[in-house]
Amino acid sequence: MDEFDVPESHPRYESLRTRHLIEAGVERGITSTAGLIAHGRGEAFDYLLGEETIPSADEAERVAAAHLLRAERPVISVNGNAAALVPAELVELAAATDAALEVNLFNRTEERVAAIAEHLREHGATDVLGEAADAEIPGLDHERATVDAEGIYAADVVLVPLEDGDRAAALAEMGKVEIVIDLNPLSRSAAVADVPIVDNIVRAVPNVTAHARDLRGASEAALAEIVESFDADAARRDAEARLRSGTVD
Amino acid sequence: MDEFDVPESHPRYESLRTRHLIEAGVERGITSTAGLIAHGRGEAFDYLLGEETIPSADEAERVAAAHLLRAERPVISVNGNAAALVPAELVELAAATDAALEVNLFNRTEERVAAIAEHLREHGATDVLGEAADAEIPGLDHERATVDAEGIYAADVVLVPLEDGDRAAALAEMGKVEIVIDLNPLSRSAAVADVPIVDNIVRAVPNVTAHARDLRGASEAALAEIVESFDADAARRDAEARLRSGTVD
Repeated sequence: MDEFDVPESHPRYESLRTRHLIEAGVERGITSTAGLIAHGRGEAFDYLLGEETIPSADEAERVAAAHLLRAERPVISVNGNAAALVPAELVELAAATDAALEVNLFNRTEERVAAIAEHLREHGATDVLGEAADAEIPGLDHERATVDAEGIYAADVVLVPLEDGDRAAALAEMGKVEIVIDLNPLSRSAAVADVPIVDNIVRAVPNVTAHARDLRGASEAALAEIVESFDADAARRDAEARLRSGTVD
Repeated sequence: MDEFDVPESHPRYESLRTRHLIEAGVERGITSTAGLIAHGRGEAFDYLLGEETIPSADEAERVAAAHLLRAERPVISVNGNAAALVPAELVELAAATDAALEVNLFNRTEERVAAIAEHLREHGATDVLGEAADAEIPGLDHERATVDAEGIYAADVVLVPLEDGDRAAALAEMGKVEIVIDLNPLSRSAAVADVPIVDNIVRAVPNVTAHARDLRGASEAALAEIVESFDADAARRDAEARLRSGTVD
């Protein structure tokens, strides 16, 4: 992979840097073909959103932090794109919220799970779940159902980036609190999420961490108030309105 | 590559079929990593447009047909995504308009040019330009500037799918009539095109061919009237309005 040598002053710097990370992920066996296409979809939605964290997404990120801090067993699900784009940031979020990291792939291969787990460890993770694959989410065909019994299966709060719609729905069916990071506010994943975060994962993950640090000393009552006052439908509507009205030219 | 076995009744059939073709293109050395990401961007814009040929795009496709029929030296530029998605349809369009096909890549390698030319020949093309690479478009760095002297360099009308903005601008500078197929009506390529076609290439190419067959016997005056009455700015505005207002709920 070539070095990334675009100057920070370039108007498309952040988008090009992110694309470079995804392409580097392919070379490392972390990102899949489907992941590249999904990244492209995300680029288009992000472009239409103005490539910034809109206020309703910032609020959703604060609510996500409150959910993770209140959880008994919070788990952060990691796929190939998330690992390629924000490996260190995921490790930091896990540390800030005492959450477990679990590699969980739509197109699962043992090689890719191992490569992603290793990549997370290189970025400071100590425990990485996902290699046991000893439980199944009910209602899905075998391949997509596979999770760790001690991880997502037993979790009460799950943060999932860019999840596929069927699996997002199946996790919601299990009664878990589901936080979904997805740039498409119209996706099925966003529709079933308790907390839809319509934001680029490269901005969302560090911002959830910042909120978690900010809320670290908050009382249970204060966290409950943050969680309960959140209106997921309003957040989805707000993101769609932004997408449709646009900030470009 | 697995066989594509999604039933036609599947609500996302066409989008999944198209994605399958792009992924198969990767295995054949036709589609690049950047092409996969570009495909994803296209999916998102197409989704917001309602995944259909909007009336202003149909009009642009008719205008494109008229331009190709009137041209002295029309050339259809073919990149990896176009070749993966509509190889036979490109060959048909070339036949219907007496246009040449030229392989022209943003990330050019001789292997990929050869693989794409071979793929087009397997789908019925007899002459495929692009391997000579003996001329340059002025104003671009060497790699992106490369074209055939007998092809794009000498063309008066060029149809380019999913072109990069710099190259689209450089071709326009050369005074060529430029027809661009791009699902993003806000892209620089669409902005500089004489005829921006904001439509999915899998719908656009067969529809330009259908219009060309329909216009085959038309007089020069009738073709001139079609071309001259076209308002590219209005077409771009219409497509953007459709994208923003949407048909998805």
